[in-house]
Amino acid sequence: MTVKVVIAGPRGKMGREAINMVTSEKTFELVACIDRKNNGKKLSDMEGLPDLYVPVFDNPEVCFEEVQADVFVDLTNPEAGFRNTRLALKHSIRAVVGTSGFTPEQIKELEDISEVNRIGCIIAPNFAVGAVLMMQFAQMAAKYLPDVEIIEKHHDQKLDAPSGSAVKTAEMIKDTRESKKQGNPDEKETMAGARGAETDGIRIHSVRLPGLVAHQEVLFGGPGQTLTVKHDSYNRQSFMDGVKLSINKVMDLDRLVYGLENILE
Amino acid sequence: MTVKVVIAGPRGKMGREAINMVTSEKTFELVACIDRKNNGKKLSDMEGLPDLYVPVFDNPEVCFEEVQADVFVDLTNPEAGFRNTRLALKHSIRAVVGTSGFTPEQIKELEDISEVNRIGCIIAPNFAVGAVLMMQFAQMAAKYLPDVEIIEKHHDQKLDAPSGSAVKTAEMIKDTRESKKQGNPDEKETMAGARGAETDGIRIHSVRLPGLVAHQEVLFGGPGQTLTVKHDSYNRQSFMDGVKLSINKVMDLDRLVYGLENILE
Amino acid sequence: MTVKVVIAGPRGKMGREAINMVTSEKTFELVACIDRKNNGKKLSDMEGLPDLYVPVFDNPEVCFEEVQADVFVDLTNPEAGFRNTRLALKHSIRAVVGTSGFTPEQIKELEDISEVNRIGCIIAPNFAVGAVLMMQFAQMAAKYLPDVEIIEKHHDQKLDAPSGSAVKTAEMIKDTRESKKQGNPDEKETMAGARGAETDGIRIHSVRLPGLVAHQEVLFGGPGQTLTVKHDSYNRQSFMDGVKLSINKVMDLDRLVYGLENILE
Amino acid sequence: MTVKVVIAGPRGKMGREAINMVTSEKTFELVACIDRKNNGKKLSDMEGLPDLYVPVFDNPEVCFEEVQADVFVDLTNPEAGFRNTRLALKHSIRAVVGTSGFTPEQIKELEDISEVNRIGCIIAPNFAVGAVLMMQFAQMAAKYLPDVEIIEKHHDQKLDAPSGSAVKTAEMIKDTRESKKQGNPDEKETMAGARGAETDGIRIHSVRLPGLVAHQEVLFGGPGQTLTVKHDSYNRQSFMDGVKLSINKVMDLDRLVYGLENILE
Repeated sequence: MTVKVVIAGPRGKMGREAINMVTSEKTFELVACIDRKNNGKKLSDMEGLPDLYVPVFDNPEVCFEEVQADVFVDLTNPEAGFRNTRLALKHSIRAVVGTSGFTPEQIKELEDISEVNRIGCIIAPNFAVGAVLMMQFAQMAAKYLPDVEIIEKHHDQKLDAPSGSAVKTAEMIKDTRESKKQGNPDEKETMAGARGAETDGIRIHSVRLPGLVAHQEVLFGGPGQTLTVKHDSYNRQSFMDGVKLSINKVMDLDRLVYGLENILE
Repeated sequence: MTVKVVIAGPRGKMGREAINMVTSEKTFELVACIDRKNNGKKLSDMEGLPDLYVPVFDNPEVCFEEVQADVFVDLTNPEAGFRNTRLALKHSIRAVVGTSGFTPEQIKELEDISEVNRIGCIIAPNFAVGAVLMMQFAQMAAKYLPDVEIIEKHHDQKLDAPSGSAVKTAEMIKDTRESKKQGNPDEKETMAGARGAETDGIRIHSVRLPGLVAHQEVLFGGPGQTLTVKHDSYNRQSFMDGVKLSINKVMDLDRLVYGLENILE
Repeated sequence: MTVKVVIAGPRGKMGREAINMVTSEKTFELVACIDRKNNGKKLSDMEGLPDLYVPVFDNPEVCFEEVQADVFVDLTNPEAGFRNTRLALKHSIRAVVGTSGFTPEQIKELEDISEVNRIGCIIAPNFAVGAVLMMQFAQMAAKYLPDVEIIEKHHDQKLDAPSGSAVKTAEMIKDTRESKKQGNPDEKETMAGARGAETDGIRIHSVRLPGLVAHQEVLFGGPGQTLTVKHDSYNRQSFMDGVKLSINKVMDLDRLVYGLENILE
Repeated sequence: MTVKVVIAGPRGKMGREAINMVTSEKTFELVACIDRKNNGKKLSDMEGLPDLYVPVFDNPEVCFEEVQADVFVDLTNPEAGFRNTRLALKHSIRAVVGTSGFTPEQIKELEDISEVNRIGCIIAPNFAVGAVLMMQFAQMAAKYLPDVEIIEKHHDQKLDAPSGSAVKTAEMIKDTRESKKQGNPDEKETMAGARGAETDGIRIHSVRLPGLVAHQEVLFGGPGQTLTVKHDSYNRQSFMDGVKLSINKVMDLDRLVYGLENILE
């Protein structure tokens, strides 16, 4: 069986990668794109996109009515994404959405539509399968090895420290380990900041250097041993495994699932 | 509640560490040791052991009859270990056993006694919690990132390559991933052995250097990303977390469990 | 002072990066390009290249006569590169060449022209400063820690194992350490290839996984310690630091230097 | 030729390792020990020391007069160490000293005695060859890749952060690189301490976990690449390579050298 896919956001970086992925998978077929510009064109008419005779719509409602699709993939922004996804589900088209920007009310609304229509929907703030596995493993390990520190490394143009992923990982760890003060009780910083940031006893260290892309390791220590879980992301292709997995999984769902971790058994 | 513990093999390296661990935990109490030598002595009479007034028996049957114990910990050898464990279970004393040397028949027999007596028993070929988690995570990751290689590193006096843990890890990975040929189909070794050992498409590399202790990393690759799970063992203390966990868990079991991985949820 | 630069090979991947680097450095000025196609055009006329009014020549001799230049950078191929470089040096223009393909006779000829004309020339088979430093450090460390293994990791489309860099590193190590058999004398491979490739006692392991780019680590072991030197290359930009350094260094040379390692003090 | 060695401090941890090392090397011979206790005994009379008929002196002057020795190794403390070393040099016995506690005046005085007597002396605050190489390589790399961060990892009982080695490494790097502010100029810490400690623009991160021993890595970043130099120390044996090297090198010296790095070419 071939899964018929519609992609919204074909000109963005994620969208371009998704088009490459969907058109190179034998079991997927790209049947339409949604783009606020370029209505009525074909993909082959748009610069830098593959030479494909795939129709482009600016109106999602028209698209979902005219095109027969199995899965809608939204790679736009929270605002357009919410509108598109609600329409897709109402047209009984499964949805895969890559945004962390929906409000709890919006998620609740989509959840309700999914349930009523018995139609699958996956919302994934992070599509990198490896990053999601790293966080899951970190959460599991913290139960048995509660002493843990996080080192995240990014290119030196990044503004914020620590990274969102590091903070998310620490949150997930807190769910399974009991709060504890780590290190020597009389520990002293002879230079401020040496021991990193702290949240509930967990230390986070942020490295910023040119050349780095996006890397994180979570270190656990116990008597006589350490356990490390590490994810290295080299480019945007790292998200495509998660998009592909989600397209396949959403075919078997009849409700909304939030977070890639909840479709990885 | 205090868990009353008997240890067999107090003079061995593992036994000494276990005595230290049990006597330093507030909820455990060391009530006796079993040693084929030193019958009738106290631990305090034996060289290099802590100054404790704990009785030593050479006959396990006498020990299990005279001493009131909750958990028996065997750190001897497969032969004595089997005899000791069977006796403990028959006396309704839970057993924690650290050996990989039992035959399937022996395991079956212990399993039956456990079930009949509704008494817990844990047999763990590897007590290092971190190592067991590493293997579990590797098995889980292989479902989503099927391209995988194993690098294990040990001190240069080790005889066999690859290590037993690396082979075990590869076996566990094979359970969850579909068999696949990795690398470029036209890949060539210009120097024999460069691509390591191979089992079902999984590559294993063994590094041997002075200074190293026991280290293993499992690398997964997917488009644009890699995921690494790594365990470093620095000394025998690394096994004590698993012994401690097993003593606590076996109190709640009414059957035999084989492998530490099966008591880590 | 501004260094006036001519680049040969502007349409190649290295050439494009070099144009970006030269035009973004304040102390460099791109004065011409040499390209067997596109004679008489400007860079701004060529697709995908920056909008610069820089003349393009197909004939290097004409270029070196008409344009006043300080340094000629060749990023073509061994054949064109040799012809271009000889001409540059004869016109008293310093040369920076990134190829490993010259014959010993060709290098000797360029060396002689450099010496006679007292004009600098740098030939660098590898422009990645970090990779060259890694090899140098490995060579230095092997004097004091003679037990060493190399692990190189590349994307899974790479054909040859081990990589050229790993072989080069092993060669450099052999220059400073005495030949020795490493590992346990009675070491056994229970799976063929586990201990990797061997050259003069040095072990080389080649990992190939999707997602990886180009990575190498050199591990040294001694009693109670290990030392690791590691280089990660994420993209072609990694070569530009070496091209930039070479352009600056060649201004102060009056002879030919082979290998970036010989201009790093 | 056999080098005749005297060791001061035979009962300390370093002293015991040194006795093992010296007696297991074919080209070394242990001829005496200096110990403020145990005067007149043999090593074989002292608990926990090897069964060797080596005389023990409490008075270094008597030792240096009665015993014919080539090299004196001091592994005591700064106070006794200074007194012992001065006496050894005055008796024309070369000295190898492992302390960081001498005052500049004391070093000057020993330097003068060495020079007048034309007799070698090596004072090494750190005998771990791998650690010293790591610092040297870091210093060399900083010239070409000026963006650098240090991550040091130690067991969780360590009191101070950052470690002395990390601070020393940063000092050495400052000697070769120009001072620079790293990272995004508008970088923000959303959790205090995330970016680590800072000295002259270099960031230092201190990880503390049970199980860890003593580890440090120095990361350099440049466009498209990173270079890492890493040292792992697993136990006190790591210092013995440096003691051995120093004993051999001091035989060829006719002056005082401070720092192991200055005898590594």
